[in-house]
Amino acid sequence: MKRTEISDLYQKYTEMDGAQVTIGGWVRTIRDSKALGFIELNDGSCFKGVQIVFEDGKVSNFKEVAKYNVGSAIIVTGKVLVTPNARQPFEIHAEEIQLEGASSPDYPLQKKRHSLEFLRSIAHLRPRTNTFSAVFRVRSAAAYAIHKFFNERGFIYAHTPLITASDAEGAGEMFRVTTLDPKNPPLTEEGEVDFSQDFFGKPTSLTVSGQLEAECMTMAFGKTYTFGPTFRAENSNTARHAAEFWMIEPEIAFADLQDDMELAKDMIQFVLQYVLDTCPADMEFFNAHYDKTLLQRLNDLIHSDFGHVTYTEAIEILEQHKDKFEYPVYWGVDLQTEHERFLTEEIFKKPIFVTDYPKEIKAFYMRLNDDQKTVAAMDLLVPGVGEIIGGSQREERLDILEQRIEELGMKTEDYSWYLDLRRFGGTKHCGFGLGFERLIMYMTGISNIRDVLPFPRTTGSAEY
Amino acid sequence: MKRTEISDLYQKYTEMDGAQVTIGGWVRTIRDSKALGFIELNDGSCFKGVQIVFEDGKVSNFKEVAKYNVGSAIIVTGKVLVTPNARQPFEIHAEEIQLEGASSPDYPLQKKRHSLEFLRSIAHLRPRTNTFSAVFRVRSAAAYAIHKFFNERGFIYAHTPLITASDAEGAGEMFRVTTLDPKNPPLTEEGEVDFSQDFFGKPTSLTVSGQLEAECMTMAFGKTYTFGPTFRAENSNTARHAAEFWMIEPEIAFADLQDDMELAKDMIQFVLQYVLDTCPADMEFFNAHYDKTLLQRLNDLIHSDFGHVTYTEAIEILEQHKDKFEYPVYWGVDLQTEHERFLTEEIFKKPIFVTDYPKEIKAFYMRLNDDQKTVAAMDLLVPGVGEIIGGSQREERLDILEQRIEELGMKTEDYSWYLDLRRFGGTKHCGFGLGFERLIMYMTGISNIRDVLPFPRTTGSAEY
Repeated sequence: MKRTEISDLYQKYTEMDGAQVTIGGWVRTIRDSKALGFIELNDGSCFKGVQIVFEDGKVSNFKEVAKYNVGSAIIVTGKVLVTPNARQPFEIHAEEIQLEGASSPDYPLQKKRHSLEFLRSIAHLRPRTNTFSAVFRVRSAAAYAIHKFFNERGFIYAHTPLITASDAEGAGEMFRVTTLDPKNPPLTEEGEVDFSQDFFGKPTSLTVSGQLEAECMTMAFGKTYTFGPTFRAENSNTARHAAEFWMIEPEIAFADLQDDMELAKDMIQFVLQYVLDTCPADMEFFNAHYDKTLLQRLNDLIHSDFGHVTYTEAIEILEQHKDKFEYPVYWGVDLQTEHERFLTEEIFKKPIFVTDYPKEIKAFYMRLNDDQKTVAAMDLLVPGVGEIIGGSQREERLDILEQRIEELGMKTEDYSWYLDLRRFGGTKHCGFGLGFERLIMYMTGISNIRDVLPFPRTTGSAEY
Repeated sequence: MKRTEISDLYQKYTEMDGAQVTIGGWVRTIRDSKALGFIELNDGSCFKGVQIVFEDGKVSNFKEVAKYNVGSAIIVTGKVLVTPNARQPFEIHAEEIQLEGASSPDYPLQKKRHSLEFLRSIAHLRPRTNTFSAVFRVRSAAAYAIHKFFNERGFIYAHTPLITASDAEGAGEMFRVTTLDPKNPPLTEEGEVDFSQDFFGKPTSLTVSGQLEAECMTMAFGKTYTFGPTFRAENSNTARHAAEFWMIEPEIAFADLQDDMELAKDMIQFVLQYVLDTCPADMEFFNAHYDKTLLQRLNDLIHSDFGHVTYTEAIEILEQHKDKFEYPVYWGVDLQTEHERFLTEEIFKKPIFVTDYPKEIKAFYMRLNDDQKTVAAMDLLVPGVGEIIGGSQREERLDILEQRIEELGMKTEDYSWYLDLRRFGGTKHCGFGLGFERLIMYMTGISNIRDVLPFPRTTGSAEY
C-alpha cells in the first residue's frame, strides 16, 4: 500500500487538487446526516488532521462507516479537493473506506476536554490527543535539533555508561543496580552483603551524570556531548522532578567559562529556532492553549542578548528586595527559583548568566577562582522558569583538585582515572548540563514534567 | 583564544598557505635534533594530526619544548606552510608554543603498538589512540546518521523508559533497580521482600527493549523510533555481549513485513554511506589495519540487492550441507551464526532476509502466519557477521494475541495496556531492532564489543 501522509498533503495540496490518494489514520471525530458524513482523520505525521467527506453512493459501505467509533484506524482512498473558502484548505472526498482496526464506545478519548491528570492514567493512549501529539512531536524535533547543532560544530556524541560504580557528583541519591537475591543476598564472613557476587563484582548504581566520563572523551576529541537518560532516586514528588530523565552534557577543551556561556547561548537559541521553524502548528497550539506569552517569550530569547552578573552581585541586588522573597537571601545561600526568576524577569528582563558561585554550594570538580571562595560556575536563568542550564569550568590543576576531593571527605583513589586527565595533558575545559525535560517544559508551557515524558517514572510510579 | 581545528586545516590549507593559526592539541610524537624539532599534534577533530615544526630562534622556548613529554597538551601559534612534495600536504611552522598541560614519562600511550586488551585497562585514555579515536568518531557519525535518516523520513524519536515494571520479551535476564536496603530489606507479614516500600512501590528492572512502549507511540504517530541504552543481565562473557548497549528500534504503522524489510535495507545502506562519506580517513585506517576487505564489503552492501528466503527454505538448503556445521540443522531449530554466515556468504553471496520463523523460537508479539506454525518475523543476515537486524510484523489481532500470551504462561492482565492498542484502532504494524554496537563492529572490523563502547559494562566489569 502506498500511503500518503497528511503532512505531505499540507505541503502539496495545491498541486494535488483532484489527485487520488490513500491515507491511513485514526478517527478523531465522525458525524453524518442521512447520506453525507465527515471524519476528522489524524495520522500523527503533523499536528493537523484532514477532513474526509464520505457520501452514500460514492462509498459502497456508507452505513457501516457512519457507525465507526472514534479511535478507529481506517484507510481512505479518495480525491483531494482544494476548498479555498472553507475552514480547512482542502478535504478528501472518499471513494473507498476500509476499517483497519475497530475502536469501541469504551474508547477513553471521546471528543471532550480531558484533564492532564486523567490522561496521565492512560499514557499508552494519550499521544493520540492534540496536547500530547504536539508535546512529543516537539520533543522529537528538539532532540534532533540538539544532535544537529553539535554535529554541525564537530562535536563527538559520547555514549557514556548508565551503570556506574562511581558517583559523579560526590552526592545525589542513586538507584542500585543488582542481580543479587533481594531477600537472601550472599553475605561475607563479616555478615555484610557480598557485592563481589553481584553481576559486576561490586556495588553499582544508575548514573546521575555522564560528565566525568565525557571529560575523558573530551581530552581526546576536544569537543564532545552526551545526550541520554539520567537518574535521581530523590523522593521528591514535585511537578519538576522525575526519577528518569534525559540530559545533554557538552564538554569543550581549550575553553574557559566565557566559551561555555557562548556555547550555551548558541545551543539554546538554535534549538528554539529549529523547533519554531519545524513545528509551527504545534507551537501555535501551545501558545493558544497553555501559555499566551509563549511564542513572544521564545522569540525574545532567540533575539535577545544574554546578561551576565556574578553571584556576589546578584546577592547584592536581591538583598535590596529581600522582603519580596519567601526564602532568605545572603552571601553563601543557594539561589531559589523565586530569586532566579526575580533576577531574570524583574531586574534584567532577559536571560542572564549568573557566575562564580560560592564553592560550598557547588561540586568538587568546579575550578577554584583566585579569591579562593568562589568557583567558575555558571547558571543560565531564563524568564518564566529560572535556572535551565548549569555548568562550570572544570578544575584542571591536579593539586587543587586533589585538595578539593580531600576537603569534601572523598577518596582520591576513587578518582584516580579522573585525576589522570590532569596528570597527562590536561587542558582548561568546561561544560554544562541541560535537563531535556526542563527545556521541553520551557518550550511548550507544559508545567508538569510527567506530561513531557512519554512514560514518566516518579516516586511510587513506573507504569507501562 | 580563537582556536583553529585540524579538520578545518585539512579542508582549507591550500587557501591558508602562509596564514597564521592557533591550534590546541595533544602531542602524539616529538623529536628534535639540535636546533630543529617536530611534533605530531592531534586535536581529535579528525583522524589525522598535523606536523608542527619548531626551530630554535623561531620559538623562544626551544629547549623546553624539546623536553615535552608525549601526551602533553600544547597550544601552538604558527604559519601554515603547504608542502606539496612532503608526506603530509602541509605543516605548521611554530612561532609560539605554550604548554597547556604537561604529561609525564609515565604516560601509558608512548609511541608503540599497544594491544587492545591493554588499552581496555586504560579506557579513560584510549580515545587518544588512532584505533579508538577512529572507533568513537565512526560511532558518533553513525549515531547521527541514524537520527538523520529517521528524521528525514518523518519518524518521531520516542524516548521510551529504561526503568520498567514489565518484561518486554516475556523473558530475558534483567537487572533489578532498587533503593531498598540490600542487607535488611523490609519484609511483608508473609516474610517476603516488601516491594511496596521500594522507590516505585513495586519491583522494577532495567528494560531489555523499548518496543512495546514504542508501539503505543506508533499508534499515534504512525512512524517512530527509539535509540537508547538497553540492558541484559546475561552471564555471557563473550566478545559479542555487553550488559549495557545501545539499540535502535523503529516501528511503523499501516505496514507489513515487506515494508519492514525495505526500511531495514534503506536504513543500513544510508548509515553506511553516511559514515563512508564523512569519515573516510577513519574507514581507510580500519581497512588497512583491521579488515582488508572492509571497504569492499561495505560498498557491496550499499549497492547490493538483498536476497530473501523463508526459514523453511533456508533449513532445506542448510540440510544439504549439514556436515559443514558444528550445530545440528532441522526444522524448528534456532539458526546459529555458522548457519547464518553460510547462507549469506556461501549460498547467496549477499545480504539476505530470512523470514517466517517457527513461532516457538520467537517472541509472543510476532504475527502468526496462516500456517499456524510460523510467525511473520525477519532477520537480516550480512556477510562477515550473520544476523544484524531482527524484526517482525506485530500481532494486531486481539484474540490471537491473547491466546499467544496465555499459551506462553504469561498473564493477559500484565499486558492490558498493550492489548488496548488492539482494542482501540489497531493497525497492521511492524518494526525491528538493531544493536548499535553490532553495527559499529560490522562497520569497523573491530571484533570485540568492549572496543566499540567507550566504557563497556560486562560480566564482572563496570570500571570508570
